[in-house]
Amino acid sequence: MKPHVFVLFGATGDLTQRKLLPALYHMSCQDGHAAAEAPFVVLGVGRSGWDDDRLHNAALSALEGAGIDQAEREAWAADRFAYAQVDAYDELGPVFERADAILDERGWADNLTFYLALPPSVYPNVIEALGARSDEAEGWTRLVVEKPFGYDLDTAKELNELVHDHFSEDQVYRIDHFLGKETVQNVLVFRFANALFEPLWNRDHVERIEITVAETLGVEDRAGFYDQTGALRDMVQNHLTQLFCFAAMEAPAAFDAHSIREEKLKVLRSTLPIDPRSVVFGQYVAANGDDGYTDKEAISKDSNTETFVALRLDVANWRWQGVPFFLRTGKRMPSRYTEISVFYRRPPVRLFEAGGHACRLSNNVLRIRLQPDEGFSLAFEVKGPGERFFTTSQTLAFSYGDAFGNLPDAYQTLLHDIAEGDQTHFVHAAEVEAAWELFTPLLNGSLTSQPYDSGTMGPPSAQRMFYGDDV
Amino acid sequence: MKPHVFVLFGATGDLTQRKLLPALYHMSCQDGHAAAEAPFVVLGVGRSGWDDDRLHNAALSALEGAGIDQAEREAWAADRFAYAQVDAYDELGPVFERADAILDERGWADNLTFYLALPPSVYPNVIEALGARSDEAEGWTRLVVEKPFGYDLDTAKELNELVHDHFSEDQVYRIDHFLGKETVQNVLVFRFANALFEPLWNRDHVERIEITVAETLGVEDRAGFYDQTGALRDMVQNHLTQLFCFAAMEAPAAFDAHSIREEKLKVLRSTLPIDPRSVVFGQYVAANGDDGYTDKEAISKDSNTETFVALRLDVANWRWQGVPFFLRTGKRMPSRYTEISVFYRRPPVRLFEAGGHACRLSNNVLRIRLQPDEGFSLAFEVKGPGERFFTTSQTLAFSYGDAFGNLPDAYQTLLHDIAEGDQTHFVHAAEVEAAWELFTPLLNGSLTSQPYDSGTMGPPSAQRMFYGDDV
Repeated sequence: MKPHVFVLFGATGDLTQRKLLPALYHMSCQDGHAAAEAPFVVLGVGRSGWDDDRLHNAALSALEGAGIDQAEREAWAADRFAYAQVDAYDELGPVFERADAILDERGWADNLTFYLALPPSVYPNVIEALGARSDEAEGWTRLVVEKPFGYDLDTAKELNELVHDHFSEDQVYRIDHFLGKETVQNVLVFRFANALFEPLWNRDHVERIEITVAETLGVEDRAGFYDQTGALRDMVQNHLTQLFCFAAMEAPAAFDAHSIREEKLKVLRSTLPIDPRSVVFGQYVAANGDDGYTDKEAISKDSNTETFVALRLDVANWRWQGVPFFLRTGKRMPSRYTEISVFYRRPPVRLFEAGGHACRLSNNVLRIRLQPDEGFSLAFEVKGPGERFFTTSQTLAFSYGDAFGNLPDAYQTLLHDIAEGDQTHFVHAAEVEAAWELFTPLLNGSLTSQPYDSGTMGPPSAQRMFYGDDV
Repeated sequence: MKPHVFVLFGATGDLTQRKLLPALYHMSCQDGHAAAEAPFVVLGVGRSGWDDDRLHNAALSALEGAGIDQAEREAWAADRFAYAQVDAYDELGPVFERADAILDERGWADNLTFYLALPPSVYPNVIEALGARSDEAEGWTRLVVEKPFGYDLDTAKELNELVHDHFSEDQVYRIDHFLGKETVQNVLVFRFANALFEPLWNRDHVERIEITVAETLGVEDRAGFYDQTGALRDMVQNHLTQLFCFAAMEAPAAFDAHSIREEKLKVLRSTLPIDPRSVVFGQYVAANGDDGYTDKEAISKDSNTETFVALRLDVANWRWQGVPFFLRTGKRMPSRYTEISVFYRRPPVRLFEAGGHACRLSNNVLRIRLQPDEGFSLAFEVKGPGERFFTTSQTLAFSYGDAFGNLPDAYQTLLHDIAEGDQTHFVHAAEVEAAWELFTPLLNGSLTSQPYDSGTMGPPSAQRMFYGDDV
C-alpha cells in the first residue's frame, strides 16, 4: 500500500458510518491488530458543518460499534482524519487545498483516492471537478463509484461517457459489494483449482444452474426509492448478473482484473436476448402477518414495481448451449440466503432396476452457499443400509465458519484492493453496458407483476419455472 | 425366503459362535424384531458329542453376547436348532436322515443349504458326499464355502474342479466377507448412481488409486497358520483384489450376480502381469513396545513370510491404462483402517500465479472409508480468507454412522443373500482363478521380506512407492 489520501465524499452518511469506517480500520490490520502507521489519511467531504474532530469521533464511535477495543481504535484513528466542508460538489477548492496540505505535511507523493458515497444526481458535477484535479496529479488518482451505474442502457452509457471524459478506465473502481465477498471470490477458486468440478462444468454434465438471492425484508423505509427502482435494477442487473458470470465464465488466463473481466464480458455477449415468456415479475401482498408492498403510504395502490424477479438466461456458447440458468431474487421470501446451485444430469438407472424394482435417482446437486452459513454442500446418492436394495440422497458438507471462523466484510476486501490498485473485483464499464443491454428490454412496462404472498418463494408461475411440475 | 434346512458344518467352532449365530438371528429380523416364524431350521454338524440342546444353548449364549434381549432370543431360538454328530465328514448318513426328518415333519420342500465352516483339508470328502445328496434333491441345494479358495493357482483349480464335479456354479456361494460389507457394496452405488463421479473415473482425470487394508494386530495366536500363508494369500488375493475390482470395473448392465461378476473378471483379465520390481514384501520387527514377527515361538527365526505387501497393478484397458493402482496391506500398522483413495490429477496452476506468487495446488482426493468410521471424504481446494491470495485444502465429509446409525454385519447380509439365492456378493470360480493367475508368480520365493518397525506403514521402499519422494 502506497501512502495516499482517501477522499471520502459523503463522509457524514450512513454507508460511511456503518461499513466504510470499520472496513478502513480492518484493512489496516495485520495479525489482528491495526497498523497505526498504515499510510493513509481519510479526508471526509460533505456539505454538513462537520470538522476534523467530529469525523474523528464518528470514526471512534463506528469502531466501537464494530467491537474494536479502545486502545486499538484510538491508536489507529490518531492523526488519521480530516474533514473539508463544501457548499456544492462542483466547488471542491477547499478539498484539494486540504489534500495538498496533508500530502505536503507528510511528504507523500500525490496519490489520491476519491470515494463517491453520493447520490448519482451529483455525479456529473463532482466527476468533472475531480477529473480536472486528476489531470494535474503527479501520483495516481483513483475514482470509486457506488451503484447504481445508470438506470437503463442509455443512462449507463451516459454515466460511462461522463467518467471516461475525465478518467481512464484503469482509474475507475465500480463497487458491486457482492464481488468483495470471500465466498463469491471463492467461486472461481472452487471452479478452477479443483480437478473434480471443472471437467463436468458444462452442458454435457449439467442439467441447469439456479442462482437465488432471497431476502426476508420488505421495502421497509426505502419505499420511495424502491418504487422507482424495482428488483431488476436493484438486484438482478448487478448482483445476480455478477454471480451468473462467475458461474458461467471460461477459465481466465490469469487471476487478474483484465483476464477475469474479459471472461465475464464474454459470458454476457454469449447470452441470448431474454425471452419475456421466461420472465416472472412479482410483487408481495399481505400474508403471514406481514403487510403488502402497496400498503405503504409512499407507494401508489396501482404500482407495478417488481419486488420479485425470476428469469431464465441462455448462454449460447460451446460450454452452455441448452443449459438454463435460472436467476431469482425477491423480498419477503421465507428465509434470507444467497446460493448458486448446480444440478447435474441424472445418471442412467437401468443398472439398478435388476431386482425388478423401479429406481429413481436424484440429481447430484452442488450448492454454493454465499450467505449466510457460507459453505458448500454436495447432495449425492448412497446405498441405504440393509438387505433391500435402495438408494438415498445424502450430503457432503463444508462450512467456512467451521474452517476459518469469521470472514472479512466485503468492504474491507474492496477497500484493500483499491488501496493496492487491483481492479479484479470491480465492475468494468463494458460489463455494466452489456448487462443493461440484456435487461433493459424487460423495463418497457409490458411485464405485469404477479402477486405473491409475503413469506413465500414468489408467484406460482416462477416456482414452476424453477421446479417444473414437482411443485 | 423359502423354507429350508441350514446345515452348518463346523457348528461347534469359533466362527459359528462369534459370527454365524448372531447373523442368522439378525437376518430373520424385520423392523428390528426377529420373526419367530422365519422359515429355516439350523442343523448343526460336528464331530463333537453335542446334541440339539447344547447347540440351542450355544445359540442363546451367542445371542446374549450380541446383546439380543432374552424374550427375543428365546422366541427366535425355539424349535430352530438340531444337531447331528458325525464320526467323519464322508459319513453323512446321520445328517441327511435328520434333515429329511425335519423337512418331513414341517412339510417343507427339499431345500438345503450346506455351510462349510471347516478346514479345507476335509473339503474333498464332504463335498463329494454332499454332491450325492444334492443330485437327489427335489428342491434346491446351496453350497457355501469359506476361504481359502486354494493356496495358489493349481490348488485353486483343483478345488474348483472338485466343487464342479458335484455342484453347478450357480449352487456355489464362496464367501469373501468384505463383499458383505455395506460400505463395499456401496462403492458401486456411489460410482454408478452419481453423475459427479463416473465421468471422471478414468485415466483422463485420475492420477492414481490407492487401496489400503491396515491392521494394528500382529499374528497373535495364528502364528503357525500364518507362517504358511502370508499377507499375499491371506489378504491381497481375496479382499484387496475384490476392492480393486470394484474400484476399476466398468458399469455392469445390471446390478445382478452375472453382470457384476462378469465385469470384475474383465478387470482381472485386463490387468498386466505384475512386475516384481513393483512389489514390496515386508515383515514387522520389534519396535514401539511390540514384539517382532519371528519372536513368536511357533515361527522360525529365518522365516521369510510377508506380513506386509505393497504392489502396483496396471489395468491396460481404455479406462485405466497408465493409472497405477497401489494395493497395500500389513499387520502392526499405526492404525486399523480400510480405504480406497482416488487421487485426481492436479489442475493447471498458471491461472493462480498472476500476482507473481508461486502456487501449488493439492490433488483433489476422494477417500472411501470402508472401516472403521465408514464414510466418504473429499479433499478440495478453497481460497483462504483474507486479502493475500492463497488456496488451502479443506474437506467435504459424510459419515454413514451419522446418517444411518449402526450398519449390519457382513455375515448377516451374506446369509440373507444365500437364503434368497442371490449370488451377487459371492466370488465366482473364474474370479478365484483369475486372481491366482495374477498373484501366484509372486509366490516363487524370489521376493525377500524387508523388515519394518511395528507401528509403521511398512518398509520405506513401500512408502516411496505410495508417496514418491514426498516421504
